Amino acid sequence: VQVTNEVQASTGNDAGTVRVGLLGCGNVGGALVEILDREGDTIARHLGVRLVITRVAVRSISNARVEAVGAGRLTRDAHGVVVDPDVDVVVELIGGIEPARELIAAALRAGKPVVTGNKELLAIYGGELFALAEQSGQALLFEAAVAGAIPLIRALAVSLAGEPIMRVMGIVNGTTNFILSQMSEERITYTEALGEAQRLGFAERDPSADVEGFDASAKAAILASLAFNADVVAGDVYREGIDKIELSDIDFARRLGYEVKLLAVAERVSDPTACETEIAVRVHPAMLPAEHPLAGVRGPFNAVFIEGAHAGELMLYGRGAGGVPTASAVLGDLIEVASSLTSGASPRPIHRDSVAIRPIDELLTQYYVTLDVADRPGVLAAVATAFGAHSVSIRSMEQVGLGDEARLVFITHVAKEADLQATLAELGRLDAVRRIGGLLRVIGVER
Amino acid sequence: VQVTNEVQASTGNDAGTVRVGLLGCGNVGGALVEILDREGDTIARHLGVRLVITRVAVRSISNARVEAVGAGRLTRDAHGVVVDPDVDVVVELIGGIEPARELIAAALRAGKPVVTGNKELLAIYGGELFALAEQSGQALLFEAAVAGAIPLIRALAVSLAGEPIMRVMGIVNGTTNFILSQMSEERITYTEALGEAQRLGFAERDPSADVEGFDASAKAAILASLAFNADVVAGDVYREGIDKIELSDIDFARRLGYEVKLLAVAERVSDPTACETEIAVRVHPAMLPAEHPLAGVRGPFNAVFIEGAHAGELMLYGRGAGGVPTASAVLGDLIEVASSLTSGASPRPIHRDSVAIRPIDELLTQYYVTLDVADRPGVLAAVATAFGAHSVSIRSMEQVGLGDEARLVFITHVAKEADLQATLAELGRLDAVRRIGGLLRVIGVER
Repeated sequence: VQVTNEVQASTGNDAGTVRVGLLGCGNVGGALVEILDREGDTIARHLGVRLVITRVAVRSISNARVEAVGAGRLTRDAHGVVVDPDVDVVVELIGGIEPARELIAAALRAGKPVVTGNKELLAIYGGELFALAEQSGQALLFEAAVAGAIPLIRALAVSLAGEPIMRVMGIVNGTTNFILSQMSEERITYTEALGEAQRLGFAERDPSADVEGFDASAKAAILASLAFNADVVAGDVYREGIDKIELSDIDFARRLGYEVKLLAVAERVSDPTACETEIAVRVHPAMLPAEHPLAGVRGPFNAVFIEGAHAGELMLYGRGAGGVPTASAVLGDLIEVASSLTSGASPRPIHRDSVAIRPIDELLTQYYVTLDVADRPGVLAAVATAFGAHSVSIRSMEQVGLGDEARLVFITHVAKEADLQATLAELGRLDAVRRIGGLLRVIGVER
Repeated sequence: VQVTNEVQASTGNDAGTVRVGLLGCGNVGGALVEILDREGDTIARHLGVRLVITRVAVRSISNARVEAVGAGRLTRDAHGVVVDPDVDVVVELIGGIEPARELIAAALRAGKPVVTGNKELLAIYGGELFALAEQSGQALLFEAAVAGAIPLIRALAVSLAGEPIMRVMGIVNGTTNFILSQMSEERITYTEALGEAQRLGFAERDPSADVEGFDASAKAAILASLAFNADVVAGDVYREGIDKIELSDIDFARRLGYEVKLLAVAERVSDPTACETEIAVRVHPAMLPAEHPLAGVRGPFNAVFIEGAHAGELMLYGRGAGGVPTASAVLGDLIEVASSLTSGASPRPIHRDSVAIRPIDELLTQYYVTLDVADRPGVLAAVATAFGAHSVSIRSMEQVGLGDEARLVFITHVAKEADLQATLAELGRLDAVRRIGGLLRVIGVER
């Protein structure tokens, strides 16, 4: 096999060669192997560093894999790859918690830099792994873990290292953005849009990790950690998914000049000069003004909007998933690691602040709420009384449908989440309220 | 003065302090001084590196400057700052060619890394200065030179270092984007929109550098050099400005589903695997489909859309100008330089390919052309004959206005620029054609 010969010819740690041990060879890993086999020469010519994948650890060795990767590189012994003295850098693309965590730790302890795309792991054990990387004097890079091909992590970690960031707000899950875009553009129901996403490969058979917001909340934790020099874990992130959004919610939002998006929001809620930083981190569907740059992000694309005290408003947009785009992010990290190895640079240590996480109960925002009600006199009075009793002030109310179809659609003034939740609890106890429907938080200034 | 005391107290090149010599203290330099004086502690705490501006060279020392910067740091001797052994890094924010070029060269020769925001200089003498930086083993960073606060340069130079880039297309001049946005949104003339831009400080009294596309073409040269590992200079960039765009052109474009934007385009026109890379680089107003992410970039914002073979479509959006946003880009570079100085890393040398620049004559695109004509029988036949004689095929024609106001608006099929220009030359010689008006190139697939 030509590939194997090439690899064997270039194996050996001469000055300009960096030997990569790859853990996991699925969509992303397979694309990385293909790119480096094909374009290693061009990269070497431009950057003076040759990246060669010398070992590839997989769970099972199939004929197709032997065909694609070459038998000489394949192994089922991931731990052997990590400690192999002929591997200079480890790329972890297995995903999940174990054995990824243990393998990354072993690589760092063995004095090897690591590149990973593992958001779940970093969102839970990031603090521990970054501390280990620092102790070991090794880089732990993770551009591929959030927003795929978008060069977001390096922007936050390097370009904006000195920037007082006020808020990071992102569309970081392509599956849910595709579903919401389809509902909005094709005027189809959630179930239809989910089916379409599954048919096109944008959603998995069991879509819960995406549609319930778990994937986005792992990414929110990573973004918050970077943006605020903090150690935020997935469990710190308030989470709501899109599975309760109805087409009528999207239609109503559009009529008012909004798009509905699943947003990951991490924001500084304390003054930037305060001694202790307090932040809020959450994932939920939101109404976003149509003229906001994030509102135009359609289909499976991702985008992250960053508000900095000096830089102002920034947005980074691109493909958030897919084997080849994500492999391109891994490759960027690999090139950085390789350059550092050849120049002898040590990674910069980052001091993390201890920050307080403000609970969702204290969120101040406007809300969109729908109630299915009995269509009879006195109902609005009862409902309005419930809002008023908890200091939630109604900005607009509209009844859509009549009789059994009667639905009240409310937009509130800015209110506190705890008060809104207390209102909803009380509304749920009213005889006349048959069902509490959509709940959307409204982004932007009250207007 | 407290500031001066602080600076004096922290002067001295102890392990964690990097001393910055600043050349030029206008909008951007002044903002940088203010940010570092205010936030130096926070940056030091997070990054373990203290950045201190110890010397500030200005053309004249005013009372206001003494007030803002402190008399102890100010000097009129820029060359003295560059060679001062107590300066570790030089920041050049003077702009223009000389003395900036000579000062940067002197700093690099003195073994000091340089951070600059000088697009004019880099677009002409970039090749020479980067070569000198490489010989000297020093970094020459320039995030602030293109698209202000947007972390674009590092994305292209580091994150996408291994990415085969197919096209970079940007709105890189905020003045012209503001003018075109105003014309489109407020339905005002070019002259009215320019006046508004001048009133708001988005355009200079003499707006020619912006509206004639000179500023954008310097940025296009820098982007092309980065994206294609080439040495492209401003003179390689074909350039047209926006000063001939009429409100009617914008209205017509909108009616067809397009926005008019001044675009800097650098694209690979040879196959990515070809031995020799051929590229095309140009700045001109263009019709961009309304659903394209760049079409929604309004007002003074900048954005750059990158098409990579692996990464797919990326866009980076933000503030392209202004003292504080641009200073934030300089600060990002300074932090990178400071980290390298403290970690002992040497900057990675970049090998530049020799690339061929394809002349504008060979461009293949669709065109929008307007002709003011005599409103009489036979005119369209004469005009159509001129198009046909040069193999430019007409996709649609519409007459707007009658009599003395008669105007023909054409959209062509894809044609060659040389053929289109030959057509226009022949049309100019026709009796019935009173004036050739707007010429716009159409971006996107023919539809």
